[in-house]
Amino acid sequence: MAPALDIRVPLDVPPEEEERYRENYHKITHGTGRLMLIAGDQKIEHLNDDFFGEGIHPDDANPEHLFQIASRGRIGVFAAQLGLLARYARDYPDVPYLVKLNSKTNLIKTSQSDPVSSELYHVRQVVDLRDRTGLSILGVGYTVYIGSEYEPLMLYQASQIVNMAHKHGLITVLWMYPRGAAVKDERNSHLVAGAAGVAAAIGSDFAKVNPPKIDGVIDAALLSEAAAAAGRTGVVCSGGTRADVPEFLQQLHDQIHIGGMMGNATGRNVHQRSLDEAVRFCNAISAITLDDASVDEALKVYGGEK
Amino acid sequence: MAPALDIRVPLDVPPEEEERYRENYHKITHGTGRLMLIAGDQKIEHLNDDFFGEGIHPDDANPEHLFQIASRGRIGVFAAQLGLLARYARDYPDVPYLVKLNSKTNLIKTSQSDPVSSELYHVRQVVDLRDRTGLSILGVGYTVYIGSEYEPLMLYQASQIVNMAHKHGLITVLWMYPRGAAVKDERNSHLVAGAAGVAAAIGSDFAKVNPPKIDGVIDAALLSEAAAAAGRTGVVCSGGTRADVPEFLQQLHDQIHIGGMMGNATGRNVHQRSLDEAVRFCNAISAITLDDASVDEALKVYGGEK
Amino acid sequence: MAPALDIRVPLDVPPEEEERYRENYHKITHGTGRLMLIAGDQKIEHLNDDFFGEGIHPDDANPEHLFQIASRGRIGVFAAQLGLLARYARDYPDVPYLVKLNSKTNLIKTSQSDPVSSELYHVRQVVDLRDRTGLSILGVGYTVYIGSEYEPLMLYQASQIVNMAHKHGLITVLWMYPRGAAVKDERNSHLVAGAAGVAAAIGSDFAKVNPPKIDGVIDAALLSEAAAAAGRTGVVCSGGTRADVPEFLQQLHDQIHIGGMMGNATGRNVHQRSLDEAVRFCNAISAITLDDASVDEALKVYGGEK
Amino acid sequence: MAPALDIRVPLDVPPEEEERYRENYHKITHGTGRLMLIAGDQKIEHLNDDFFGEGIHPDDANPEHLFQIASRGRIGVFAAQLGLLARYARDYPDVPYLVKLNSKTNLIKTSQSDPVSSELYHVRQVVDLRDRTGLSILGVGYTVYIGSEYEPLMLYQASQIVNMAHKHGLITVLWMYPRGAAVKDERNSHLVAGAAGVAAAIGSDFAKVNPPKIDGVIDAALLSEAAAAAGRTGVVCSGGTRADVPEFLQQLHDQIHIGGMMGNATGRNVHQRSLDEAVRFCNAISAITLDDASVDEALKVYGGEK
Amino acid sequence: MAPALDIRVPLDVPPEEEERYRENYHKITHGTGRLMLIAGDQKIEHLNDDFFGEGIHPDDANPEHLFQIASRGRIGVFAAQLGLLARYARDYPDVPYLVKLNSKTNLIKTSQSDPVSSELYHVRQVVDLRDRTGLSILGVGYTVYIGSEYEPLMLYQASQIVNMAHKHGLITVLWMYPRGAAVKDERNSHLVAGAAGVAAAIGSDFAKVNPPKIDGVIDAALLSEAAAAAGRTGVVCSGGTRADVPEFLQQLHDQIHIGGMMGNATGRNVHQRSLDEAVRFCNAISAITLDDASVDEALKVYGGEK
Repeated sequence: MAPALDIRVPLDVPPEEEERYRENYHKITHGTGRLMLIAGDQKIEHLNDDFFGEGIHPDDANPEHLFQIASRGRIGVFAAQLGLLARYARDYPDVPYLVKLNSKTNLIKTSQSDPVSSELYHVRQVVDLRDRTGLSILGVGYTVYIGSEYEPLMLYQASQIVNMAHKHGLITVLWMYPRGAAVKDERNSHLVAGAAGVAAAIGSDFAKVNPPKIDGVIDAALLSEAAAAAGRTGVVCSGGTRADVPEFLQQLHDQIHIGGMMGNATGRNVHQRSLDEAVRFCNAISAITLDDASVDEALKVYGGEK
Repeated sequence: MAPALDIRVPLDVPPEEEERYRENYHKITHGTGRLMLIAGDQKIEHLNDDFFGEGIHPDDANPEHLFQIASRGRIGVFAAQLGLLARYARDYPDVPYLVKLNSKTNLIKTSQSDPVSSELYHVRQVVDLRDRTGLSILGVGYTVYIGSEYEPLMLYQASQIVNMAHKHGLITVLWMYPRGAAVKDERNSHLVAGAAGVAAAIGSDFAKVNPPKIDGVIDAALLSEAAAAAGRTGVVCSGGTRADVPEFLQQLHDQIHIGGMMGNATGRNVHQRSLDEAVRFCNAISAITLDDASVDEALKVYGGEK
Repeated sequence: MAPALDIRVPLDVPPEEEERYRENYHKITHGTGRLMLIAGDQKIEHLNDDFFGEGIHPDDANPEHLFQIASRGRIGVFAAQLGLLARYARDYPDVPYLVKLNSKTNLIKTSQSDPVSSELYHVRQVVDLRDRTGLSILGVGYTVYIGSEYEPLMLYQASQIVNMAHKHGLITVLWMYPRGAAVKDERNSHLVAGAAGVAAAIGSDFAKVNPPKIDGVIDAALLSEAAAAAGRTGVVCSGGTRADVPEFLQQLHDQIHIGGMMGNATGRNVHQRSLDEAVRFCNAISAITLDDASVDEALKVYGGEK
Repeated sequence: MAPALDIRVPLDVPPEEEERYRENYHKITHGTGRLMLIAGDQKIEHLNDDFFGEGIHPDDANPEHLFQIASRGRIGVFAAQLGLLARYARDYPDVPYLVKLNSKTNLIKTSQSDPVSSELYHVRQVVDLRDRTGLSILGVGYTVYIGSEYEPLMLYQASQIVNMAHKHGLITVLWMYPRGAAVKDERNSHLVAGAAGVAAAIGSDFAKVNPPKIDGVIDAALLSEAAAAAGRTGVVCSGGTRADVPEFLQQLHDQIHIGGMMGNATGRNVHQRSLDEAVRFCNAISAITLDDASVDEALKVYGGEK
Repeated sequence: MAPALDIRVPLDVPPEEEERYRENYHKITHGTGRLMLIAGDQKIEHLNDDFFGEGIHPDDANPEHLFQIASRGRIGVFAAQLGLLARYARDYPDVPYLVKLNSKTNLIKTSQSDPVSSELYHVRQVVDLRDRTGLSILGVGYTVYIGSEYEPLMLYQASQIVNMAHKHGLITVLWMYPRGAAVKDERNSHLVAGAAGVAAAIGSDFAKVNPPKIDGVIDAALLSEAAAAAGRTGVVCSGGTRADVPEFLQQLHDQIHIGGMMGNATGRNVHQRSLDEAVRFCNAISAITLDDASVDEALKVYGGEK
């Protein structure tokens, strides 16, 4: 079983929004404190690379595929830009949403210029949409590239977003990536821990990091430093590039049970599959993240046996 | 016949503007869902290159020519900057207008500096003009150069414009062009599809792209990836450099029926002709775009036979 | 005779300001549609180069000289920065004023950096001064350097200024200069026409251009393309560097009657003379611009014979 | 004994906030005029370098360690970012807090780019939190890098922060560091004095400087120039890199009694120890800073004998 | 005797502030129209270089020295940053103050980067302080570096400050310095005149310039061009680097009676002396500036004989 949920409401949530914050936190973690996030912000972040090409199921060519997965699979929250959400959410009213507030394309490489990803939407606009439509918008997300020459802009926007989101009872997830000419090894575990600590210092509920490597190899134990550094901010890990299913689920299990991760954030590994397979894969991930299932149990969920 | 119109009102249109949004969408597509846009923003974008010189009819030297075409031809919408519109629209009150909100000259080449085109007018000013004058302003447009070092500025302004335009019942068209030092082949079909997908992610009603090429050759089939990637955002294609009439109309027909385009955006190919010919050419384009006419039927319209 | 005045009020002038706009347009053109503008913004633009030195009359050393000319000569409007106006206009209440909203010094050359001239004052401040003091402030002016890397800033400010000025019934004049590393020949007639067209696209009442040259020689016929490209926006030409009087007046006559110019914008050629001569020279210019006088008639005015 | 406290309320504190300012000044200095500040902003400033690694006690891996020290030790004020405070302060309501308003990571070195640290939070947000929760937030802090190419931004934000903080009765501490390509020796005593003088010119209550060196050696007497230059602004000194306890306490004693410092600002030297030792070390520092204890007396406090 | 005071209230002073403007102008010039300004903004501009070191009296190490001079000496106005003023002015309520709104340190040399000095405080904050405390704040000051690549920012802020200050009845002094990579000889008299003319164009009451040189030698006659170019804007000159007293007073006398200066702005030459000497030196300067005393008479004042 996942740990019992002890929700500590941060002080920047005003009393009149505490109940909503608790409910959102409970929903987004299914009462476990662990986050199961499906990332659907790649149409900007990776252009069409993640949606069309060799090894990608044709279902993924249509943006609606993301909403269908989020609707049928067992997830904590589905992250997308406000514009995409505005075009599809009317038909998928039961999906729990998280609005990704910034995004950039992958065209400019770090060798040309340090990365910068600036707000596309303000928290105020998310709150307005939520309050007017009654959509289940549980939180907001934002990417910070620490070590970039544009770090001051992103640290400022992230700090303001966390503060404003909490003011309106929303949960926050910060994608924390060290990147830029000054960053020699963005997968170094000490640096990843530092990135997670920055998210804690600006008060986010969750920080999403990339899995650290040592000598080019992922090792879940390397995550412990980040989990500790983040304190009350839950750290979640990305699934990274597409892996085969047993390997992926084993990594996830290790991240949680060895690395101390408080969930997962998965994108391509889910949506590049057919709708049916993607839904089963979501459910397998949720079994591990939310039910403390073993890898074998999760594989049965993936196989449709459970 | 063009497909029956199924208007899905995005969620960022508030209830009190839904009716207006539906009417605007219906008008701008003549109830077909397909957009027939005449672009008249080149006085900034191309300075006087498109209006005066060899092969350009003398009628085109006068900016009023654009309004005369838009007034007499059968079009979906005529796009121009607010200033030009303010000087002529009183005399052309029946033209359906779309205000192009940003523009830049063509003087600085990408080899000197990455392209940046910033808002000249705010949606608020367009709405004020519409509401005060009763002009038929149906939408707003904006150009985004993804891959430019100024992408964050343009993505932000575009996202905000779509959100604000929808808030006031206006239709949005985003010109999506990959351009900048980081962009090696801006006509690559996968990249064009990515650009169309960005427009979908920020919630635009339509995205205008340049026709992709393979080995330097246009092929309408290459557009299918973009049409799919954009989902509920309709993709339209530019006519590009001036082509002879049958070739142009065949390309348009292919873009729609092979490439899945939801219309066209045409500028020079129309307005560089005499008023009479430009009007007939508009009507030929509309026959294909709005009536599902064959190329031969459209040529008859162009020839004045229909 | 100059053409009868047909004032077309642009749509961004609200109904309650239409009458004021008509009056301002009538006054600034003496009911002819032609603008006779005396430029007095050089204390920033050219520092003291235009006011003190060889060949410059000592009267010109004192800034009040400009106001004395504007007060005694027959002019359409006198352009100066708000600060200068605030110090002298109380003593020259009958002068028709135009506030030049941006200015830069001439210290940084284009070889060092592309030109940028940013707003010093906002239209709101001009309107406040006009409404409080009752001064005859008829319009505002702004310089745009197209082709500069700072073009987006200046195009934005210019567009906003035209829109805001019209909202308050003010006439607008845009100084349109192609300049920057990307501009190889800023006197090319096709480029000058493009610059005039940009002013039309952002809705200005008048555009001021530098006279185009071919093979280094000014030819008034080269202006026709600009006059056409600007449509309902009147184009006026600068007198350029100091010329002898008959040559200057002949050029002005040609600009109007051959080039289609709608007036003139003159600075140094007027104010570097003694007060008496400057006044007579103003009157000679006005004879051509406002009365359709011949060059010979204008020379008589200059000579004090008329 | 420390000097009797003579609180001179600066004029930018309005009458209705004077009492609060006096109380805050009294609390933050324990009525002595001397500041005993524990810095807890390093999770951004130094990432995880100060919290995990060789020679650092495992207690320090968890951010809560900072709050535990601040809660059990005798301190003047504990400085941290608003986000961290929002997550833990509910459980540590008796700690006196100072919100550090800006922070940057240490990834970009001065050899790559001049340092810039921009506001993450506005004074308004701190005041809102204080007024709503009743937390003991006594002041705000901000770092200025004079000599950086970004100095204008930081001087502006610092000036505004001091003014706004005083308006709401808060005490201000400015971290004044000369740094950037233009700064050859940031530990030069004349330059450090200049930095302290800047803090006085913009009206801060306290300035924190790094201890100056001559020929690479720290000498408390070098601080006298800074103490004088700052006038009524109290100067405090950092403990710098980790030193052994007697050496650290001797330096602190010298800074106060030879250098004229008005307190200390200590971070790593405190929190890298176990909770128990860190608390005793805090108390030893406070004995010197607040009670005018001798080094020997302070060592007894550290040893738990007093 | 100095000329009788003819106060011409600029038009950007609204009627309800005219009386205050007249009073401020009268006070700041002791009814003579000539400005006697003591500059105390060097703690940022020159760090501690002007306050501590060889040849500087120890009295100058303490910032309060400046206030003591301003309080005991006969001056027109004492210029300092708002923060410094806020800390000391309660004890020196009778001093006439001018708030210097921008300042930069001297660390970055022009060879590294063009100079930029940005607003630290807004006029609104100065007005609030004046109105709330009743302090004798008569004006505001600002430095403009024309020819710097940051000229547009500074020209904009200066223009807005003059306009806003006048709106609230405050007198304005602009420090006008040509500086930057584009400026080859910042002491050239024609360029200094241009700088003074810029201050006139943006409507300042006074412009402070550095004394022009020819072949490296100061000559008061060179100032005449600037005095003329500035028109109704009074030009004052700096005392420059420290000179011996008779030489300094002779230069001041020449600047006024040969160069047409309307006063002086003096800093180091005053405050680097002991309090007693500084006060006598102030009085000697005032004798020349305000009483039209001869150099000999002023020397007697300096000597304490008068």
